[in-house]
Amino acid sequence: MQTKSLAGELLAEFVGTMVLMLFGLGVVASVVLFQKGIPGEIVNGGVTNINIAWGLAVTMGIYIAGKTTGAHLNPAVTVTLAAFRGFPWGKVAPYVIAQTAGAFVAAAIVYLNYRPAFQAFDPGLAKTASIFATVPAFPTDMASGWIDQILGTALLLLMILAVTDETNQPPGSNLGALMVGLIVVAIGMSFGTMHGYAINPARDFGPRLFTLVAGFQNTGFETGVYIVPIVAPILGGLLGAAVYDLAIRRYLPK
Amino acid sequence: MQTKSLAGELLAEFVGTMVLMLFGLGVVASVVLFQKGIPGEIVNGGVTNINIAWGLAVTMGIYIAGKTTGAHLNPAVTVTLAAFRGFPWGKVAPYVIAQTAGAFVAAAIVYLNYRPAFQAFDPGLAKTASIFATVPAFPTDMASGWIDQILGTALLLLMILAVTDETNQPPGSNLGALMVGLIVVAIGMSFGTMHGYAINPARDFGPRLFTLVAGFQNTGFETGVYIVPIVAPILGGLLGAAVYDLAIRRYLPK
Amino acid sequence: MQTKSLAGELLAEFVGTMVLMLFGLGVVASVVLFQKGIPGEIVNGGVTNINIAWGLAVTMGIYIAGKTTGAHLNPAVTVTLAAFRGFPWGKVAPYVIAQTAGAFVAAAIVYLNYRPAFQAFDPGLAKTASIFATVPAFPTDMASGWIDQILGTALLLLMILAVTDETNQPPGSNLGALMVGLIVVAIGMSFGTMHGYAINPARDFGPRLFTLVAGFQNTGFETGVYIVPIVAPILGGLLGAAVYDLAIRRYLPK
Amino acid sequence: MQTKSLAGELLAEFVGTMVLMLFGLGVVASVVLFQKGIPGEIVNGGVTNINIAWGLAVTMGIYIAGKTTGAHLNPAVTVTLAAFRGFPWGKVAPYVIAQTAGAFVAAAIVYLNYRPAFQAFDPGLAKTASIFATVPAFPTDMASGWIDQILGTALLLLMILAVTDETNQPPGSNLGALMVGLIVVAIGMSFGTMHGYAINPARDFGPRLFTLVAGFQNTGFETGVYIVPIVAPILGGLLGAAVYDLAIRRYLPK
Repeated sequence: MQTKSLAGELLAEFVGTMVLMLFGLGVVASVVLFQKGIPGEIVNGGVTNINIAWGLAVTMGIYIAGKTTGAHLNPAVTVTLAAFRGFPWGKVAPYVIAQTAGAFVAAAIVYLNYRPAFQAFDPGLAKTASIFATVPAFPTDMASGWIDQILGTALLLLMILAVTDETNQPPGSNLGALMVGLIVVAIGMSFGTMHGYAINPARDFGPRLFTLVAGFQNTGFETGVYIVPIVAPILGGLLGAAVYDLAIRRYLPK
Repeated sequence: MQTKSLAGELLAEFVGTMVLMLFGLGVVASVVLFQKGIPGEIVNGGVTNINIAWGLAVTMGIYIAGKTTGAHLNPAVTVTLAAFRGFPWGKVAPYVIAQTAGAFVAAAIVYLNYRPAFQAFDPGLAKTASIFATVPAFPTDMASGWIDQILGTALLLLMILAVTDETNQPPGSNLGALMVGLIVVAIGMSFGTMHGYAINPARDFGPRLFTLVAGFQNTGFETGVYIVPIVAPILGGLLGAAVYDLAIRRYLPK
Repeated sequence: MQTKSLAGELLAEFVGTMVLMLFGLGVVASVVLFQKGIPGEIVNGGVTNINIAWGLAVTMGIYIAGKTTGAHLNPAVTVTLAAFRGFPWGKVAPYVIAQTAGAFVAAAIVYLNYRPAFQAFDPGLAKTASIFATVPAFPTDMASGWIDQILGTALLLLMILAVTDETNQPPGSNLGALMVGLIVVAIGMSFGTMHGYAINPARDFGPRLFTLVAGFQNTGFETGVYIVPIVAPILGGLLGAAVYDLAIRRYLPK
Repeated sequence: MQTKSLAGELLAEFVGTMVLMLFGLGVVASVVLFQKGIPGEIVNGGVTNINIAWGLAVTMGIYIAGKTTGAHLNPAVTVTLAAFRGFPWGKVAPYVIAQTAGAFVAAAIVYLNYRPAFQAFDPGLAKTASIFATVPAFPTDMASGWIDQILGTALLLLMILAVTDETNQPPGSNLGALMVGLIVVAIGMSFGTMHGYAINPARDFGPRLFTLVAGFQNTGFETGVYIVPIVAPILGGLLGAAVYDLAIRRYLPK
């Protein structure tokens, strides 16, 4: 069966995550590199634009890959679905690799697109790695990064399981993709400042790898801080799913 | 019947209100504690983000609890449904306790998550209780707080009864949760400045209790102002429902 | 037949327009009177909040009155439907009066709610009549006001007829109310600065009458400028409907 | 068959593109010409309003023309549908002319509407041609303009083909128009700063022609930069469609 072939699934996860990350990294580049707004004196979109566009980015990625794979686009989703919804464990590694590769390629394309703006704003590539990978607001307080990423991803998976649960009240008319995007808008607005709301290991590690390859400074690899947005979202996703299944799903009619 | 068991209902109200309050309190913490934006010089989301995220917070809470309880998440809703729609009076108190407990726990989690930011911005916890509980803009004019909270909650219940009334034109495709969120966005943008649009006794009292326990100053308990967002929303909800039933519902075909 | 009684219709138009205007005037009061944001230093929602909330205001008014009357809430809509869609001419005057009365009452309630803020910001009521009624950006160039109001209302009716036309592609799931709200968001963002996008004679005249009664200065009555947002929206509505019917509807399958 | 007549189709493309461009150019004029906000000191909507309103502009144009032609409103869409979906090549030129004419007329109407504001802000028409036609952020680096316009339009067509593909998961309830608008919001927020996200030859060339006729300076014709947003979107659209068909559509069940 062509449709169900692993190649098609991995391609969908690759392209879907690439689209997600093109929009997601694009808005950060746009807001950070054009802080004076465009044209000239107009108020920059700021954090509001970053939050809205990341949500739309997720919506777009889901419309690309939703039919083929359900649009995981995030290792925390893939692992959680394996642990709680019977997604085959054997597919977890290939999915995660496809997602991370999609995020890496998106980072390269965004850099290519904004290259003259990087050269104008940060010619030494010393202060803009944060456009690609998340940075903790309080680097010396590692615990706060762990808490924030576990909490954010727990909310992500708790809500994703709720809005896609046919025994609950999921949005119809194929608007689940929009709703998952709005979940990400909410997480970004409410829990985006402590650690940049990675809530997705592929979203963080793929582009971070690109910053290393492309010669950026302060990539996070030198301090070890890059571990947090890889491991914490996995833990958070499992926690959120456990809360949903124990507190809500258990009481819903089959 | 498992599904209809009171335990399941109270758990849904607890988790639903907790989710609502995590997003709601989270955005206020994020905007207030990171007033310089992130990273560095980027324009903070400000009031726009606060209003949008509170609306999404309500939407998320409803997707959690909607199927199990109808997602009251608010004592003003519970009391109004008891008075106007036959919700059992005997369940009112347990629902209200579950809602308030959910809001209290959410406040504790938000504080835990933003702890280093509180320490940096307000080490004495002297000026940030308002992140958790509402504060009147004109504390010496108590009447204006009563009017604002009655009006805001009247609009909330008037609109909730309209968009969930099967004899009117309620949104389909399980998008009622989105619409109720947009009602809250509208109330926040249009009536959020006089008294912080509590419009929900559990939303206000639960977190305010947390600020007392956690050692914040200016919690509102010392002045008695905490009474307004507890009592006024109940009155407002009843008023809004009365307007809806008398002016609109009476004329709709059964 | 109770449902079809004129009393029920007028009540629906009255309450629907009142709700529309509560949210609409509320957001302007909130943004103008609290220009320093709340609490304290946070960025005010500004024009973005005003535009979004006016759109939601219209959505809310439609969910109130949509089933009973189709939710005109605007004399330009009522007159256009009479001219182009067979709405009874005999009902036009009572509808318009109900709409204007609803807008007047909403203005009084908004003033009551924000009274201490008016006293703090504008104790002489000399500069805040513009919270209630529109003001031209170029008062000496009357022609520009006429053009702007005709254009804005032409777009409003052109789009309303498009998104409610069963022979075209109207939104389903009872989401037409949301779409009409988004039409108003678009008009506000794109054509809101020249004349405050009244695009609705009741929206402008009702609250302006209130400013006269309440003792505001610079109400627009002294200069005659109040005529523009009364007459121009009627002309614009007819123009927009003519464009829709001639250029689009004529070519659609019945 | 009246409905299918080319005249009706061209009229729909003309009016649909005109509506798109009225809202799109209107918001840029509003934000640029009223940089101090309205009234007086209120925060201008800035880039956020520009991005949201352009998206809504597209949504509105689609609700006008969607039933009649599918609402191309963009030569890049028309050419891509001819190359990938069997749209008749013989209709491409007339469609493109109708779209460009609609955009030209919209530019004239927007100028007429904002005339006193142009006279106040830019009496010599020396710095506001960018309200009508896009301008590269790095004019000396032509390559970056090509990359940006190819990338942006590739994303546009990739997403349009995804959300309108009945074998994928397209939005129902006639909400595809809203989703295409949100695609444009995402492109604007994430890829709007390098070259003003023309992503539509008619959107750029029609209004640019108007600026030439109306006597604006710095129209882009003198430097040859006007070629980029004409040719690059066509290439980008074809690229995006190729990616969608090869990577996603090939693996979907028929």
